[in-house]
Amino acid sequence: MAKSAEQGHLNQAFGWAATDTSGVLSPFKFSRRATGKKDVRFKVLYCGICHSDLHMIKNEWGKSRYPIVPGHEVVGIVTEVGSEVEKLKVGDKVGVGCFVGACHSCDDCANDLENYCPKKIYTYGDTYYDGTATQGGYSDVMVAEERYVIHFPDNLPLDGAAPLLCAGITVYSPLKYFELTKPGMHIGVVGLGGLGHVAVKFAKAFGVKVTVISTSPGKKEEALERLGADSFVVSRDPDQMRAAMGTIDGIIDTVFAAHPLLPLIGLLKSHGKLILVAAPIDRPIELPVYALMSGRKLVASSLSGGLKETQEMIDFAGKHDVTADVEVVPMDYVNTAMERLEKADVRYRFVIDIGNTLKAA
Amino acid sequence: MAKSAEQGHLNQAFGWAATDTSGVLSPFKFSRRATGKKDVRFKVLYCGICHSDLHMIKNEWGKSRYPIVPGHEVVGIVTEVGSEVEKLKVGDKVGVGCFVGACHSCDDCANDLENYCPKKIYTYGDTYYDGTATQGGYSDVMVAEERYVIHFPDNLPLDGAAPLLCAGITVYSPLKYFELTKPGMHIGVVGLGGLGHVAVKFAKAFGVKVTVISTSPGKKEEALERLGADSFVVSRDPDQMRAAMGTIDGIIDTVFAAHPLLPLIGLLKSHGKLILVAAPIDRPIELPVYALMSGRKLVASSLSGGLKETQEMIDFAGKHDVTADVEVVPMDYVNTAMERLEKADVRYRFVIDIGNTLKAA
Repeated sequence: MAKSAEQGHLNQAFGWAATDTSGVLSPFKFSRRATGKKDVRFKVLYCGICHSDLHMIKNEWGKSRYPIVPGHEVVGIVTEVGSEVEKLKVGDKVGVGCFVGACHSCDDCANDLENYCPKKIYTYGDTYYDGTATQGGYSDVMVAEERYVIHFPDNLPLDGAAPLLCAGITVYSPLKYFELTKPGMHIGVVGLGGLGHVAVKFAKAFGVKVTVISTSPGKKEEALERLGADSFVVSRDPDQMRAAMGTIDGIIDTVFAAHPLLPLIGLLKSHGKLILVAAPIDRPIELPVYALMSGRKLVASSLSGGLKETQEMIDFAGKHDVTADVEVVPMDYVNTAMERLEKADVRYRFVIDIGNTLKAA
Repeated sequence: MAKSAEQGHLNQAFGWAATDTSGVLSPFKFSRRATGKKDVRFKVLYCGICHSDLHMIKNEWGKSRYPIVPGHEVVGIVTEVGSEVEKLKVGDKVGVGCFVGACHSCDDCANDLENYCPKKIYTYGDTYYDGTATQGGYSDVMVAEERYVIHFPDNLPLDGAAPLLCAGITVYSPLKYFELTKPGMHIGVVGLGGLGHVAVKFAKAFGVKVTVISTSPGKKEEALERLGADSFVVSRDPDQMRAAMGTIDGIIDTVFAAHPLLPLIGLLKSHGKLILVAAPIDRPIELPVYALMSGRKLVASSLSGGLKETQEMIDFAGKHDVTADVEVVPMDYVNTAMERLEKADVRYRFVIDIGNTLKAA
């Protein structure tokens, strides 16, 4: 049982928290630990709103413990560093993503894949090494061990860059791991939302051909002209789907709602890869084994990325000017933003302007 | 529409065929083409009985055209070669596997993956380039283009080696492609039948640790002591399954009957691979996406192997003395063998002694 957030530490902090399964967020006083030897403290400027925040505040995964201060796309400016901090200094632009702790002794940790460590500690809604509840970035200040803090290059605007810490790495990592970034490749992105639009941008930055596959014909112009996709297929149009069959090397599928995999597997070339980065929780998905067998295709899923790769991804984003398309909102808009997010009414990611709009009670 | 097998060619041939969906096989006169410039003709000595023969003679895949002479694990001795045949000569031990033609212009053909060529021609039950029906190895003689004929090393007994042409390559190819042959790896084999027992032998020949996962506790001694597996897990025993969780790098699943994937995915380490080489046709399989996501695991399927890899597999089998465990039966036992195969009553593969027991009508 985690100690209560209010009592855990000496340093006051302030944010917005959900206190029950209604998921309604309201102003909330809590505490952060003092800056330890290996810790970095930073003033939060922006925090992205991730779809998992919505799941967590409503306890849709059945593991929420209230109160919860959500937020795992947290960016800001370093205000203090511990005596053993080596790479970061006061004034640096930094961020914290989905987790703030891990065992550092398992195979995954040894391979810079802390995101798969069975003992990883989530940035909020989890229990830290010291027994206190972790609280996320819808708050004025963050403290984290240096190894969990990502450095941001100066040219990246922090509001647009915040969502890279979850949405960005979630699509960047499988593109790399499943070798979908080779010149000449043709990548499909299913769903043009928070994850999908960043997947298009990263894939284009890698130099591959990108086709967006969407149920919404209305997103075509946006996909082609603003995001730079090469083509657009309406997944509900059998003629368009048929014409694209067997043409794609790998698909990043970002759709949370349950949907049939067979048409997507049909779009793949032999030896193609269908990567699900969002998993439906409402009903099971059927696996069409024969469709895989006849072309040695695979279906896989992956979950964010490790710290080393997250830093690599942010550096790559800086080099290629990749940021998310965001709607920056004030802190007191967050409940409305959650309602709109539930209806997918955002292009493409909400980011809370913590620095300018979070006012102490 | 294929020309009738009896009228297609000048050279008489003799075998056993199914003539309707009862699947009952009976003596059958047909013809083979004359040995073309690039062709190899061989006297059939043995032919393995594959589970797909059973599906085909009963039209369980809905594509059978009668009469059908089954058999795609065909081995024998070369009796004639065409003028442009380069590598094979009269007297060589050879075999023909699952296919005898392909387009040789698609990407898969260019990459020695003729098995995934959309225009590949199956060894039986298909239509050859010249419009005649292809007929398989339950027959006295085979004729095939040299490129489709595999050379067998002298030390391999042809009866035990015949099943390698389908069962063998079906498990060898995914072990290689999915990189499950590295020293120190731990491989699981689900199902100890025709495919499974060969998978154990190949995996051991590659030098990896092998665990057999089976519903039948009675197969433990066999698996460990005769096939050389390192451990045995009864899949219906929750304690044994729990103890093995997260320990396996890759699984070759050879079970045709529908079965839940979740327990098998649980046996995999992070980044583990579940390869289905037999696909259930009776009901759909459910894909537990979250179980994949939390460890970046993948599910895939593959279908036999290309010609180059099949030759490599036979050479590897020769070097490591890998053969199938077979029950050699006379030609007129074939219908009984099919009945027993349907009940999985064979350890582990039937092979018909064509050379000694196929008698002309």
